[in-house]
Amino acid sequence: MRQIKVTMVRIYLTEAQGKLDPLMKRLHDWEKVRGVTVFRGISGFGKSGMMHSSTLLDMSLDLPVIVEFFDEPDKVATILEHLSGMIAPGHIISWQADLMTDDQQQEQI
Amino acid sequence: MRQIKVTMVRIYLTEAQGKLDPLMKRLHDWEKVRGVTVFRGISGFGKSGMMHSSTLLDMSLDLPVIVEFFDEPDKVATILEHLSGMIAPGHIISWQADLMTDDQQQEQI
Amino acid sequence: MRQIKVTMVRIYLTEAQGKLDPLMKRLHDWEKVRGVTVFRGISGFGKSGMMHSSTLLDMSLDLPVIVEFFDEPDKVATILEHLSGMIAPGHIISWQADLMTDDQQQEQI
Repeated sequence: MRQIKVTMVRIYLTEAQGKLDPLMKRLHDWEKVRGVTVFRGISGFGKSGMMHSSTLLDMSLDLPVIVEFFDEPDKVATILEHLSGMIAPGHIISWQADLMTDDQQQEQI
Repeated sequence: MRQIKVTMVRIYLTEAQGKLDPLMKRLHDWEKVRGVTVFRGISGFGKSGMMHSSTLLDMSLDLPVIVEFFDEPDKVATILEHLSGMIAPGHIISWQADLMTDDQQQEQI
Repeated sequence: MRQIKVTMVRIYLTEAQGKLDPLMKRLHDWEKVRGVTVFRGISGFGKSGMMHSSTLLDMSLDLPVIVEFFDEPDKVATILEHLSGMIAPGHIISWQADLMTDDQQQEQI
């Protein structure tokens, strides 16, 4: 077992913003990140203090959507620079992590 | 692009505990955290070893619910002290991360 | 309030792989981790570059599934060695975190 350093990123959006599709397209086609996973939250609130939740009344109106990916630290730093004009400040968080890999794949990453 | 240090927190509950609503109210009204996102897991088990899953038989009975938020390290430390009487030990995890911000917003955070 | 060091792990699967059930069984019965939570993503792509999403056309065909757990660093290192033959390289990420505990429980962990 070998591990390489990666930077993990989570981007906080809401469904109503319409930013998910262009962001996914950008990460997939342009930035070519290793992999991306999108999650939908069931409730939440942001800086506005407004609650977003999946109750009967406002179901699916504006739920939280989180885009998660990881890649090499240098590559992620470049991607974050690119995204800074696309995503509002305070909505992108990142941290260092270890990715399990193997000897053969080490060169490819 | 600028980054500030934040502490990321994840709190592990289950739906049947009835703790989500009071916790969200507390984080929103009292602790005034920057933002909170709630996720529902589709399966899981805890210290009891009991599985919680969304199969036909026990759907929605006691699924895992995760409350995630981040804020300044000092503010989070205070919040965690407050929560220690509300959430059972072993259910709150935290780590350091970087939040993308910008020059203008730096003072507000 | 006391905190102990733990290693947080996230394992990225897709539903179509059929690996979730044996992995959960292994983590529960053999590795005896403290707790596991499973999440389903609503969309994503992996190294293949192929998108997996929950649209009408391909709903539930091959959505991302994430298995998350944390435990003592030494115990997790052993578990990751065990899993390295079961999970493809590049799908297991881990990082250090702090778990809130209390004085009485410290010995049990």
